[in-house]
Amino acid sequence: MTRYFQPHIANLAAYVPGEQPGAGETVVKLNTNENPYPPSPAAVEAMRALDADRLRRYPDPTATAFREVVAGVLDVPLEAVIAGNGSDEVLTMVLRAFVGPGDVVAYPVPTYVLYRTLTEIQEGVAVEVPCDEDYRLPADDLVKAAADVTFVASPNSPSGTSYPAEQLANLAGRVKGVLVVDEAYVDFAAADALDLARTRPNVIVLRTLSKGYSMAGLRLGFGVGDPSLLAGLGKVRDSYNVSAVACAVGAAAFADQAHKAANAEKVKASRARLAADLAGQGFRVWPSESNFLLVRPPAGDAERIYRALKAGGILVRYFKQPALDDKLRITVGTDQQNAALVQALKGLL
Amino acid sequence: MTRYFQPHIANLAAYVPGEQPGAGETVVKLNTNENPYPPSPAAVEAMRALDADRLRRYPDPTATAFREVVAGVLDVPLEAVIAGNGSDEVLTMVLRAFVGPGDVVAYPVPTYVLYRTLTEIQEGVAVEVPCDEDYRLPADDLVKAAADVTFVASPNSPSGTSYPAEQLANLAGRVKGVLVVDEAYVDFAAADALDLARTRPNVIVLRTLSKGYSMAGLRLGFGVGDPSLLAGLGKVRDSYNVSAVACAVGAAAFADQAHKAANAEKVKASRARLAADLAGQGFRVWPSESNFLLVRPPAGDAERIYRALKAGGILVRYFKQPALDDKLRITVGTDQQNAALVQALKGLL
Repeated sequence: MTRYFQPHIANLAAYVPGEQPGAGETVVKLNTNENPYPPSPAAVEAMRALDADRLRRYPDPTATAFREVVAGVLDVPLEAVIAGNGSDEVLTMVLRAFVGPGDVVAYPVPTYVLYRTLTEIQEGVAVEVPCDEDYRLPADDLVKAAADVTFVASPNSPSGTSYPAEQLANLAGRVKGVLVVDEAYVDFAAADALDLARTRPNVIVLRTLSKGYSMAGLRLGFGVGDPSLLAGLGKVRDSYNVSAVACAVGAAAFADQAHKAANAEKVKASRARLAADLAGQGFRVWPSESNFLLVRPPAGDAERIYRALKAGGILVRYFKQPALDDKLRITVGTDQQNAALVQALKGLL
Repeated sequence: MTRYFQPHIANLAAYVPGEQPGAGETVVKLNTNENPYPPSPAAVEAMRALDADRLRRYPDPTATAFREVVAGVLDVPLEAVIAGNGSDEVLTMVLRAFVGPGDVVAYPVPTYVLYRTLTEIQEGVAVEVPCDEDYRLPADDLVKAAADVTFVASPNSPSGTSYPAEQLANLAGRVKGVLVVDEAYVDFAAADALDLARTRPNVIVLRTLSKGYSMAGLRLGFGVGDPSLLAGLGKVRDSYNVSAVACAVGAAAFADQAHKAANAEKVKASRARLAADLAGQGFRVWPSESNFLLVRPPAGDAERIYRALKAGGILVRYFKQPALDDKLRITVGTDQQNAALVQALKGLL
């Protein structure tokens, strides 16, 4: 059937998400950066209480009820918020709006692999700027790329690195096009770059409810930026992209900042303990502002350890690619899960 | 901010969905083809009973539980079904996979305006083939367009026309590229073209849970077609495009075929009564295989009647465009809603 596809689509390698165990399989799942704690009870109640008539009717096309809560909490105008079916969909909007054949998309690597996939779908040119071993922001090389869109994930995955807002502000003033700061993991970080979205005409900050709000299954994310920039993004948005369920549940979840913050504090405390434990086992552990740790096993035999852990029912993430194939990305779980991991590693090193 | 956008996006007119009244506004809503009857109780219960842990974790990337139900009911292989965040998202996948700058997309008009919007987003060339006054399938002109993608909505909106499977089979064998048969309204029709999706390498049939299953607020649709064709579409699908809620609720809704069929029978019976009532008032009423009627008021003053009905709390759809601006598209509501419409019209004609 290849002949029906655009050639670059026929040749495209699809994005491969992390493994998801089947229902009922008991595993310690530390591979896709889910929050180990449950979502806000208010959010779950919003789902259970949703009137069936809200399912029957089309949803509000722009998810106003959800955006109103976000705008209130973040103190930005309603028009400075655009909602998506996960922040992945907002990424898709960014690519479709700003990038056509031959247009340039730049980002530091390693990072979220989806940036490349989405660039290739648009026939854009991906300029991947390697980070040094400490994953510092390669600002000069990003600027040199003269990109139509520059992506910086902060905190970044898989490195866990967060970039100071001043560095990102400086970058925003130097890039040719739009700077997208992907803050999927920001709820576990000490600072954020939201102020850039409020003040710079070319910055979009992305957020998600998948991580800090424990709602990866709901599919809800949003972008914050200049209203005229978002109005253009809205043109390539699916007309009813956010379901009535996601809108209502997301509004309740985002309103419950206390629940999110309490869970994030627990994750951060566990992160510190896990980092210390792994360092004690000889791992190199990169400093993390996220809910995962990038680590290098003492002997660099990451793939062997990944497989051995998996055989024992513990999933972590292994990226079989240059500069990462000697490392593992480990989601911070509950203290019990982390202890199970540390225990299992004892027999493997 | 226009300078950041691709020029064709900056110039694009965004798709405008039908009006949605605010929460609490009491209106008779006959403008966006929602089903007037509630969704399956089993589906609503699936939402209320969903474990919070399903919200916490990423959903199954390919919505297997939902697709299994669909595959079972329709008697097709699991791999012949792809799920989307509404059938709108499957349309988006089709455009992104098959259509690049200069590629041709053909479809009869009038039809779903989103086909044009999505074509323009891809910088494709939209060849709009006008139907005659009886909205017959303009097959020869569609073939002449030599399109990479041909869309035929059957039943079509706003005409309500359904095309016989033999006509579509013939068309499938003659078009250059892929034929997408958009069966969003098929649950209210006497026949369908699903067999083409089973047997033809270049046909994709689209279905939605928004109409027959009374779940426009859930955002869930799917495509049926050759597995290798769908595998390519999957490359441009957002990685986790269907939420855990939509997957579970959709599976329960699709499994309850009896509920859907019973509601569809009610709608079809009401459609016949409403058609007779409007004809009795002097409207021209086109034959409809859908859950709406395309009608022409006796004096052709459709815009005036649309506005007057709206002022009285009754929403119908008016398309201010050539060949439609003398007509109204009226969703078939409950008998009570339809009677309210007929009553209101008495004072307006």
